[in-house]
Amino acid sequence: MFTTKPATDLSYLVNARALIDAAPHLYAQFATHNAHTLAAVVRMAKNAGVKIEHQRLHGMGEALYKAADDLYDGITLRAYAPVGGHEDLLPYLVRRLLENGANTSFVHALLDERVPVEKVVVDPIDVVEAHPDRHAKIPTPIEVYGPRRRNAAGIDLSVLAERARLADAVTALDAQTLSAGPLVGGRLTAGTPPLPVVSPADETRVVGAVSEALEPQIDQAFALARAAQPAWDRAGGAERARVLRALGDALEANTDRLIAILSREAGKTLADGIAEVREAVDFCRYYAVLAEDQFGEGELLKGPVGETNVLRLAGRGVFVCISPWNFPLAIFTGQIAAALAAGNAVLAKPAEQTPLIATEAVKLYHAAGLNPDLLALLPGRGETVGAALTAHPGLDGVAFTGGTETAWRINQTLAARQGPIVPFIAETGGLNGMFVDTTAQREQVIDDVIVSAFGSAGQRCSALRLLFLPRDTADHIIDGLKGAMDALVLGDPASATTDVGPVIDAEARGALETHLDRLKREAKVLHALQAPAAGTFFAPVLAEIPAADFLEREVFGPVLHVVRYRPEDLEQVAGALAARRYGLTLGIHSRIESFAADVQRLVPAGNTYVNRSMTGAVVGVQPFGGEGLSGTGPKAGGPHALLRYAVERAVSVNITAQGGDPALLNL
Amino acid sequence: MFTTKPATDLSYLVNARALIDAAPHLYAQFATHNAHTLAAVVRMAKNAGVKIEHQRLHGMGEALYKAADDLYDGITLRAYAPVGGHEDLLPYLVRRLLENGANTSFVHALLDERVPVEKVVVDPIDVVEAHPDRHAKIPTPIEVYGPRRRNAAGIDLSVLAERARLADAVTALDAQTLSAGPLVGGRLTAGTPPLPVVSPADETRVVGAVSEALEPQIDQAFALARAAQPAWDRAGGAERARVLRALGDALEANTDRLIAILSREAGKTLADGIAEVREAVDFCRYYAVLAEDQFGEGELLKGPVGETNVLRLAGRGVFVCISPWNFPLAIFTGQIAAALAAGNAVLAKPAEQTPLIATEAVKLYHAAGLNPDLLALLPGRGETVGAALTAHPGLDGVAFTGGTETAWRINQTLAARQGPIVPFIAETGGLNGMFVDTTAQREQVIDDVIVSAFGSAGQRCSALRLLFLPRDTADHIIDGLKGAMDALVLGDPASATTDVGPVIDAEARGALETHLDRLKREAKVLHALQAPAAGTFFAPVLAEIPAADFLEREVFGPVLHVVRYRPEDLEQVAGALAARRYGLTLGIHSRIESFAADVQRLVPAGNTYVNRSMTGAVVGVQPFGGEGLSGTGPKAGGPHALLRYAVERAVSVNITAQGGDPALLNL
Repeated sequence: MFTTKPATDLSYLVNARALIDAAPHLYAQFATHNAHTLAAVVRMAKNAGVKIEHQRLHGMGEALYKAADDLYDGITLRAYAPVGGHEDLLPYLVRRLLENGANTSFVHALLDERVPVEKVVVDPIDVVEAHPDRHAKIPTPIEVYGPRRRNAAGIDLSVLAERARLADAVTALDAQTLSAGPLVGGRLTAGTPPLPVVSPADETRVVGAVSEALEPQIDQAFALARAAQPAWDRAGGAERARVLRALGDALEANTDRLIAILSREAGKTLADGIAEVREAVDFCRYYAVLAEDQFGEGELLKGPVGETNVLRLAGRGVFVCISPWNFPLAIFTGQIAAALAAGNAVLAKPAEQTPLIATEAVKLYHAAGLNPDLLALLPGRGETVGAALTAHPGLDGVAFTGGTETAWRINQTLAARQGPIVPFIAETGGLNGMFVDTTAQREQVIDDVIVSAFGSAGQRCSALRLLFLPRDTADHIIDGLKGAMDALVLGDPASATTDVGPVIDAEARGALETHLDRLKREAKVLHALQAPAAGTFFAPVLAEIPAADFLEREVFGPVLHVVRYRPEDLEQVAGALAARRYGLTLGIHSRIESFAADVQRLVPAGNTYVNRSMTGAVVGVQPFGGEGLSGTGPKAGGPHALLRYAVERAVSVNITAQGGDPALLNL
Repeated sequence: MFTTKPATDLSYLVNARALIDAAPHLYAQFATHNAHTLAAVVRMAKNAGVKIEHQRLHGMGEALYKAADDLYDGITLRAYAPVGGHEDLLPYLVRRLLENGANTSFVHALLDERVPVEKVVVDPIDVVEAHPDRHAKIPTPIEVYGPRRRNAAGIDLSVLAERARLADAVTALDAQTLSAGPLVGGRLTAGTPPLPVVSPADETRVVGAVSEALEPQIDQAFALARAAQPAWDRAGGAERARVLRALGDALEANTDRLIAILSREAGKTLADGIAEVREAVDFCRYYAVLAEDQFGEGELLKGPVGETNVLRLAGRGVFVCISPWNFPLAIFTGQIAAALAAGNAVLAKPAEQTPLIATEAVKLYHAAGLNPDLLALLPGRGETVGAALTAHPGLDGVAFTGGTETAWRINQTLAARQGPIVPFIAETGGLNGMFVDTTAQREQVIDDVIVSAFGSAGQRCSALRLLFLPRDTADHIIDGLKGAMDALVLGDPASATTDVGPVIDAEARGALETHLDRLKREAKVLHALQAPAAGTFFAPVLAEIPAADFLEREVFGPVLHVVRYRPEDLEQVAGALAARRYGLTLGIHSRIESFAADVQRLVPAGNTYVNRSMTGAVVGVQPFGGEGLSGTGPKAGGPHALLRYAVERAVSVNITAQGGDPALLNL
């Protein structure tokens, strides 16, 4: 990716030479209206003695190619023309107009009589060497959120060295056996007798062992947290931001190892692991900014002279954070970082399937400078540790991500308390639809559907479950989806070539198989892949169902349900989905704005994605969270995220009692 | 109140003449260091043949008064000196310095050699006539919140004509019998057989009748609300703000009648009625501003080029609002206005004691242009109508102000639903303390305690319940409180001279009498007033208790509990109050900032008031609401108030799919 036109032009020539040099294995074809480029590739081909082909858009560049044909004693030229309706061609034409209209465009310079020929035919290397820097107004990816929030660093899996580094990290991890258990006051203590943690991609691989927290450890964690919290709260948002940024940096410094653990313990592909670590880092840095902005000196409110009125936010006390196995680092960290940012202490219960990555993270946080009493880890099952935590009188709030039924249970436990009514921030399931109309671009739909439905083996709450295709183009899109599914690689998630890893455990696979049986009986399976023999794999399935109400609840895995609809029935078809009362994510593919607006009106959703994939919300960019059965809000990674973790305090001071209002003297 | 110095100076002279003219009934004394003023009052007294006295601060103005004594052949002069410790005198001295240091001060001009004598002795009438306008930079009271929020208009009870107007409104009301009942779709329909509504100040006075809502009416109200809400939500914050401002204006236009109803139905004094109508108006106008700011086009979030990411707020659906009898118009309106502002429809249940004022308000709102389907009134008891509303599947959220036990019950009802987890915004009781130290100014403490503890007959959730007095000054302050209590007038709340009206009903009085019996047995009653015979009056009581833990819960009436403490025991004494886990209001009287900070650290509270009364929070100035057992937040009348009434929706649009990101061309 280049940020300046000269660098892009030079890159084109460098790549053109590589293509020409690859003959006879490649037969290179070049489509350009730039005379300099045309001359350059002809010269390169002649020098190399290689035959190439030229292409031009029908109706454009005729004079140029006529001149080239004369000058070079004949060239091989193909004229092409895009064919299609107005909706298909408009975006293409707009893009061409934008390109050719740019000030830096060759066409622009060529047609400008004031530009001397010497400038048009200048050596592209000279231009780049004269201005080697990136475009001054385009930030680097790391700076894209401005100076206060450094973007999380990525890993480019197309770079061999980076893949090798990750492979080394996996190998190193495989030589170890990890331990998880109650981490209270910064010390790993013994709970229940340890149980093995096995890899979902291969049940014979023992990744580590976990010991569940016991009641006295829970009591102790509450006591330490309660004692440490007031000082942390009083330290203020700026100081907490400093610590949160240190936590983010600690994660980033350990990216490779964390990805390896995610792959082994949670069955995450490397690409998913990279995204997950980045999201965890983003949460730390984004909430650091909110802590600074919202937990400082407070907001001075308008009022009468003679008194000052200030509104401040403060932490609530001790938060219990209960996180899921599908984002065992990112959601785990997001909940904790939010609660900490707002001035709370945290008791964290990781999902029972993923205690190892949680232990690793908490140790990193403590090592990075967080007072260990402010963050205890209490691994265990929901029925034991989760129940004890949420029923504890020392609790001031719960953040939970998981199933709707579990959320109901926790909510009832909290409501049964004869004490303060505490916040319950729940992020639960979804029954997410994507609506495609006939103006949608087929290739883009297919790409985005495959990623949204089968990425992460469908184990995202945001994942696409119901694809609504218009009758007229449904078959054509389904054909493309089948082909794209066939290209998916299932296998060891730690391998860089794997697209789809296992589902989390045998119970999850069993539920999916039961659902597949129902689809075979009551609906129509359009396409299904084959799962590897070892591990708890469930291979992607494409099935057609009659309507949205075929599904009563979330199907958590790589099963995509297609519903065909007639455009005139949109209201009713979409209404059937909305009637399920979930409201998490919504996808729309269309070139028509009124279609997108209609779908949004008909299907309320926390996160809507238009003409793109519908998973992978980025912290601060797509604040994430649903409504209805999908969650309570506020959105994670959004500007209001911290408010439910905090109390508001208003202080009114009569300053005339101190001798008058000095503000009056400045009028 | 004058906003310019010349107007204030002239007012002094006008009042001086009035005092002198009142001889021999008044013997006027003048303390000034302004030679012009001194000369003026001497001349006025001489012209009138009246004897007056002059006063000067010891050590100041000696030359001036020597000159006057010479010039006027002897004047009667008293020199005075403030006596006391550093803390007592500092505020006084600061005030003097500010006054004398002001650019417009006479002393300033007198000592400036460049100012000619003619200017110093200029005719004060000429000065005012040359600049008759108010100070350009001091807004009128109506403009104090800026151009977007007009302040609610007040009524000055010291003005005879205004009192007469209110008396007329009461008389007019007494000639009517009001009707309350289910208001569904804008029509008053028949519910249960009507029951009389009597005045708490005189049970023989029937103010009106109320009919309770029945189940079919509740179902119909939900159906109408659900059907009307989407259009209201889509109308956007600006349109809803327009309607909310119309509601506020409708209240203001009917102020007199509303005050009369508040007085007859709820036993409110006229002053309390004025404040209550103003608060209701303020809620409409404040939330109108929030609706405009927060429910518009949404917030554009930072992100990568090629896509737009916007975060918008939207209404949740149908809110149930359950309000208390102690602010039957202000809290009733505040809940409704918040829910409406955020794009919801509302089903409102007024307190069972105050259906008449609620009916009046809802009729005004409908007449002012609110679609009646968006606001239904469903009067009735908590056990019947309240229970049916909160258990209804059509519910999307509840706003409640009332007792802690009722809040628990509602919370349990909501948690029992197998559906979306809906917001529960509860504002409950308080056990509010005021901490006084030895640097506090006694007269100010007494004024603020009387207002905070006995104003509104102590029937405010913000009212002062526990007064913590330092041992050294406790007796002196208690003596003052007894004297101030003796000056309180109990009686008909519709009379302008009444300070304390009745408590709401016989049940409330019974609970207070039971509590008084306990105080007599287990504590020490320091002072108690006599209640009028008719009506459910309970006369103010001052009692001393050993420590905060004597009280387990809120005592809702005019009972003030005094706790004596030794300053060295502050931590423990305040800790005992905090241990009750209420956290509503907190008062502090001290000249020492570290004392105020310590008390705030020791007693968490939603609203803290320093060196002033601790009741009467103003919308937008002191956002109101507590923590712990006192409420869930968000604060009413604060910048975050609407967020819990709303859902957040993030929309991510891939704009490269439309042909490129035009923003790149503008770099």
